[in-house]
Amino acid sequence: MQVTARGKSQLDGSSVVSLIDHHRPNWSLEQAFYVDPAIFELERELWFPRQWSLVAHNSEVPERGRYIVRQLFDEEIIVVRFGDGEGDIAAYYNVCTHRGSRLCAKDGRGRLLVCPYHAWSFRLTGELQTRQDLPGGVDPDAVGLHRVPTKCLGGLVFCGLEEASLPDFQPVADALDGELREHGIDRARIVARKSYPMRANWKLVFENFLECYHCGPAHPEYSSVNAHVKVSATRDKDKAAEWHQELETWRSLVGDAEFNKRVWEPGGLDKTPFGMHRKPIGDGRKTLSQNGQPVSRLMGGRNTYDGGQTGFRVGRLSFLSAANDFVAAYQFIPRNVAETDIVVTWLVDKDADANVDADAISWLIHVTTLQDLKIVGDNAAGVASRAYRPGPYTALESEPSSFTQAYLAEMRSLLTGERPTAAPVWQLPEGYAGQSGCKVTQTA
Amino acid sequence: MQVTARGKSQLDGSSVVSLIDHHRPNWSLEQAFYVDPAIFELERELWFPRQWSLVAHNSEVPERGRYIVRQLFDEEIIVVRFGDGEGDIAAYYNVCTHRGSRLCAKDGRGRLLVCPYHAWSFRLTGELQTRQDLPGGVDPDAVGLHRVPTKCLGGLVFCGLEEASLPDFQPVADALDGELREHGIDRARIVARKSYPMRANWKLVFENFLECYHCGPAHPEYSSVNAHVKVSATRDKDKAAEWHQELETWRSLVGDAEFNKRVWEPGGLDKTPFGMHRKPIGDGRKTLSQNGQPVSRLMGGRNTYDGGQTGFRVGRLSFLSAANDFVAAYQFIPRNVAETDIVVTWLVDKDADANVDADAISWLIHVTTLQDLKIVGDNAAGVASRAYRPGPYTALESEPSSFTQAYLAEMRSLLTGERPTAAPVWQLPEGYAGQSGCKVTQTA
Amino acid sequence: MQVTARGKSQLDGSSVVSLIDHHRPNWSLEQAFYVDPAIFELERELWFPRQWSLVAHNSEVPERGRYIVRQLFDEEIIVVRFGDGEGDIAAYYNVCTHRGSRLCAKDGRGRLLVCPYHAWSFRLTGELQTRQDLPGGVDPDAVGLHRVPTKCLGGLVFCGLEEASLPDFQPVADALDGELREHGIDRARIVARKSYPMRANWKLVFENFLECYHCGPAHPEYSSVNAHVKVSATRDKDKAAEWHQELETWRSLVGDAEFNKRVWEPGGLDKTPFGMHRKPIGDGRKTLSQNGQPVSRLMGGRNTYDGGQTGFRVGRLSFLSAANDFVAAYQFIPRNVAETDIVVTWLVDKDADANVDADAISWLIHVTTLQDLKIVGDNAAGVASRAYRPGPYTALESEPSSFTQAYLAEMRSLLTGERPTAAPVWQLPEGYAGQSGCKVTQTA
Repeated sequence: MQVTARGKSQLDGSSVVSLIDHHRPNWSLEQAFYVDPAIFELERELWFPRQWSLVAHNSEVPERGRYIVRQLFDEEIIVVRFGDGEGDIAAYYNVCTHRGSRLCAKDGRGRLLVCPYHAWSFRLTGELQTRQDLPGGVDPDAVGLHRVPTKCLGGLVFCGLEEASLPDFQPVADALDGELREHGIDRARIVARKSYPMRANWKLVFENFLECYHCGPAHPEYSSVNAHVKVSATRDKDKAAEWHQELETWRSLVGDAEFNKRVWEPGGLDKTPFGMHRKPIGDGRKTLSQNGQPVSRLMGGRNTYDGGQTGFRVGRLSFLSAANDFVAAYQFIPRNVAETDIVVTWLVDKDADANVDADAISWLIHVTTLQDLKIVGDNAAGVASRAYRPGPYTALESEPSSFTQAYLAEMRSLLTGERPTAAPVWQLPEGYAGQSGCKVTQTA
Repeated sequence: MQVTARGKSQLDGSSVVSLIDHHRPNWSLEQAFYVDPAIFELERELWFPRQWSLVAHNSEVPERGRYIVRQLFDEEIIVVRFGDGEGDIAAYYNVCTHRGSRLCAKDGRGRLLVCPYHAWSFRLTGELQTRQDLPGGVDPDAVGLHRVPTKCLGGLVFCGLEEASLPDFQPVADALDGELREHGIDRARIVARKSYPMRANWKLVFENFLECYHCGPAHPEYSSVNAHVKVSATRDKDKAAEWHQELETWRSLVGDAEFNKRVWEPGGLDKTPFGMHRKPIGDGRKTLSQNGQPVSRLMGGRNTYDGGQTGFRVGRLSFLSAANDFVAAYQFIPRNVAETDIVVTWLVDKDADANVDADAISWLIHVTTLQDLKIVGDNAAGVASRAYRPGPYTALESEPSSFTQAYLAEMRSLLTGERPTAAPVWQLPEGYAGQSGCKVTQTA
Repeated sequence: MQVTARGKSQLDGSSVVSLIDHHRPNWSLEQAFYVDPAIFELERELWFPRQWSLVAHNSEVPERGRYIVRQLFDEEIIVVRFGDGEGDIAAYYNVCTHRGSRLCAKDGRGRLLVCPYHAWSFRLTGELQTRQDLPGGVDPDAVGLHRVPTKCLGGLVFCGLEEASLPDFQPVADALDGELREHGIDRARIVARKSYPMRANWKLVFENFLECYHCGPAHPEYSSVNAHVKVSATRDKDKAAEWHQELETWRSLVGDAEFNKRVWEPGGLDKTPFGMHRKPIGDGRKTLSQNGQPVSRLMGGRNTYDGGQTGFRVGRLSFLSAANDFVAAYQFIPRNVAETDIVVTWLVDKDADANVDADAISWLIHVTTLQDLKIVGDNAAGVASRAYRPGPYTALESEPSSFTQAYLAEMRSLLTGERPTAAPVWQLPEGYAGQSGCKVTQTA
């Protein structure tokens, strides 16, 4: 007998470890990691529960009793404000503890969360309120709602699947809370939200997000607005010189302290990755709009446009891009092995004009993400072919290369129980602002 | 190696037995029973073939040569009248014995069943008619149609998947044939039929059907018509007293013999469950219509409205609800692990006015079943979450609790070959009519 | 433990061999071969790579730089003309060697194949052109496009999945190239193309194509045009006599040499099957049109209508039906275990009138294939039933019987590594032209 019938889902943990051990560093992943439902199931069981993810902005639950229904990986959760303090926000799986029904069909407000099936009611803090129907011998405390770990940070709400598996969130809070507030994110309101259903494995979606090598062929609008494409999308020396000139100009405008502001924690199984860095938009543009002119009121403590943009990352799957007058928050939501949602939420200052132009604000990221929708769909189609082989990451793809390397090291450790032998080195691409003197918190 | 990649379909028989052995009585089922395709496959192989199911009313095959195409579990069957006797009805799998083609695309009439592919023709009794093309050496009797076991009962046609696995039908016939005829079901015609595609495992659909605890929150129309919700949907003592008053009033109207009429066989692997019970609709209503007033001609031997309603159950998956002037027959049809059809057929007396108002007749069950469609879809969504845990059945959910207990005992026995150690006790909820003196046929 | 939960995809190679060893010759296949995804996966891995398939006509890539995107089994490929010679055609998997993206979204023209993702560019001969971004140490020759084996034959382009698994194509070329050119296929243009998405396993689609026993019940138009149904669709002796008279009349018209022209290689694992045979359309019809009258210009070297039609087969999955003035080329494209595309391309002489009536040309095969779409869908539905059992092929189904026998022998050999003990005998049905004196190349 030479062969056996192998469906794509016949991989077990040890064959995945073997695939990992044969991975060639700096080459893209083996096909199975992009297409095999069994690997997605392992990620769902082992890797996703270790990730903190952005799920909401605090303006979505503005007062006690307001609740919203949101997606956390393949799970639906309810995010509830249970008190008046900024951090008085909890989240629960959207599952009634009686017979398992979906509890809330949509966003709402109330003193209790009431299941539409048998009217079991739960307090905003999760405990069962209506206990008169409970059979004798059942401890009411054992049938409170199933909590979703929740953290509030600078106006944002983050959740994770399992308390026991999540890394400490405190270092992220210590490092980023102040910066997020300085950017006015805690005092913002939502002006637009769009969901992009990518027909691709979440790692393809994510690798695409992490590199700008494709910006030249694929993103003309993005490239026309962002001067950093001179170093992130090409290795042309003349363009690199132009960018370094742009950097020096911006340094003299904002000052060395602002210029060197940078936080970078590559993270690992026991550490939430996070980061922040600033750079100029370039070409005298004030914000990330089509003509570079303001599209909303200045946010945070700012009283003048400084022509910079700020990137935040919290955990592996949440990002923010902040111009001076608006912020875009990205959520990456893996739905199944072949589908991933990107949800983008645009924020402006809460006192911004009620008639602010949401289309102008969302223009750049919207056109770019629609282009990415096509790109990653085509990438997924090709990766599924019997002709797909891992290919080499180029110098402009160091971020996806670092990510896949870190991902594989973490999966190996989760599958074997062994500690990674060496922490993957993951650095921001060269040529960005703040190369020296920055506050890098990387720890071995 | 700590874990292996487990798709949801990797359960084998022994792990299902282990799940059963860890079941906590009076709590809902473990997640796998509601979502795992491997368990559905086991049910399809072991449990479904032991069930008799309602498939048709005899008015659908009124004369010799009439045939209809119907669904039996995930199989399509042809029900044929082959003779003039009331019971001269046979059924066949809708599969040609030549190359396997679907034989009949839709209901029809003829002396032969002719396959549209190669025109192989079969007699109404299943034998191959056109034998001239058969290769030498092939026994024509070996290529007759594959029969589906069929029983006729009080105007209804019941089928099962496999002769060898089905329990004896005779006790059902002995117990219910007369009652069904007294209700005029053998002399009825179909006035409406609707199919409700539930996006949920059949056991969730079924558990929902078996309890009225959800009637308060979910079924206002049903609750406004049926006085029994005073005991079936709540445990309020005052309402219970009202219901008992209602019962006494009805007892004095119909007499003790009618009041105590009740049949109940909980069934088991070797016994088809069946039952019948009567109770008043309540509040002076004559029938199950919106205003309680008649919607069709009186059925059966009846010459006056007695304000009662009758519930019949035959096997695990077929029910009838009979008012004095119309009958609704329910079929539960599991299609796959996540989809179940409920088909409801409304019957009236065959001599009823041709312009009878089908919408008025089907009103209550139609609005209620549409509500259930939403409810069980939400239940299925929640049950699929990683946060789902079995929950406790309340006192008002004794029927689903009895059903799941019986289901698990039967599955365990089918998987292990061991006899159940104790027959599950399954009784009608308290507070219904006929508590004493009823004919209960439960046998150990 | 009596049973285990078996999903349909749990078959392994040895259980498939066991199914094969229990096959009853001259009966249709066991259910698993028509419905089990694991068997499709084995075919995809072992059997499909051994098949040459028609993918294009050379008029689709008329000059250097023209490329087209086509389907080869479940793979998308790019067929490219890289030079001016008739055979200067290559094909590649539609997968970029950088990160695996789909390379070409649609047909086009250019000096290079440029990936829309990161603009990696490949020469028409497959080599990577843009090498400046390659990381150090990566051999540019190792990242050329993944070639698809390609052969040109009489104006047609054939491809296969894997060079190492494909049988020699030369015998096909030696036998058929001249005949295809005599029929003018190399000097043709495409006048219509239609795709028929059959909801059935490819073997059901294929068996249906190979027999005309169903032509009577299912294909009235086909039967009205083709006199050969007198022997291929029935075993009526009087009709057989009429057909033999038709043959004799045609023999006296075309002469013995033309009459006896016939090529037949049943093929095997190491030999590509191929064949050609001619027969009269019948009833004085000049071509395969509705009224038998010409619908386009005569093709090839022909200067008069001879009333004949020619069937070509190349490999197991490609067929041509040639009338004197048009040709229909059939591609059978298995997409997954339950779906198969038939693509039909109609060709006329390249100098035919620009206003030639495509509907008249495609009429017969279009109506017939639409009927087959329904037929094979119903066949697939029945074959999936638990009541399906293999059935006996009749004398008029010798071709599907030969095919399934050959298929099983080949699968067994691929699964076990053992040579078939006896070559299956596969002959054209009796009663066709050229019974004696024909050039049969069958080799043991």
